[in-house]
Amino acid sequence: MARYERHIFVCTNERPAGHPRGCCKARGAEALRDALKAEVHHLGLSTIVRVNNAGCLDACESGPVVVIYPEGIWYGKATAADAAEIAEKTIMNGEVIQRLLISGEKFAPDRLQFPFLVKPSEGNT
Amino acid sequence: MARYERHIFVCTNERPAGHPRGCCKARGAEALRDALKAEVHHLGLSTIVRVNNAGCLDACESGPVVVIYPEGIWYGKATAADAAEIAEKTIMNGEVIQRLLISGEKFAPDRLQFPFLVKPSEGNT
Repeated sequence: MARYERHIFVCTNERPAGHPRGCCKARGAEALRDALKAEVHHLGLSTIVRVNNAGCLDACESGPVVVIYPEGIWYGKATAADAAEIAEKTIMNGEVIQRLLISGEKFAPDRLQFPFLVKPSEGNT
Repeated sequence: MARYERHIFVCTNERPAGHPRGCCKARGAEALRDALKAEVHHLGLSTIVRVNNAGCLDACESGPVVVIYPEGIWYGKATAADAAEIAEKTIMNGEVIQRLLISGEKFAPDRLQFPFLVKPSEGNT
């Protein structure tokens, strides 16, 4: 088992107000991060899943941006209201939520031939 | 092809001076991050490899901490002087540098049954 079965990076980068690219922080990234952390805790996955702050992930126009490894699943324009679904479908079961995927070929997950399930270990819930 | 063939997260978290856990920023994380970015650029990999800032990766005692996905390779106590070797061996070729691995079973890479090589695309060097 690796350190984390899934590792979720949420861009919380901040740019000055009025910057042409905007920033994930101004688009609600911190609320999304906090909601994902709460869901992971609620599901009893804290020892095998981590939600991390990240710097700019270079997909600012789709912010808030989230990337989930090891699969490399890129979600954009996610909100705190999406956190429970992300946790239950993607983090627990490796299921991709199509409506949250950032569009464009370069963002397409391509390692999903090896999905794996995350299950809380005993005593972990 | 995924957004990035390898995605490198360097913890640049900062804590107040004297904090018992210390922090990666005080241990040279920014110099390591900058050196890794420079190596990736030098190797012509900027479009397929990204070096990112990350928040606390919860391995503070081994800082500066780096995790490389999709494999989930955890390096600790790396310095800017290690950046060229990390780029040439791990980022380019998926080769693990044993002396930089954080010790402990939970940090062991376990997905290296699927290593893959990163090669600059034409016109990328």
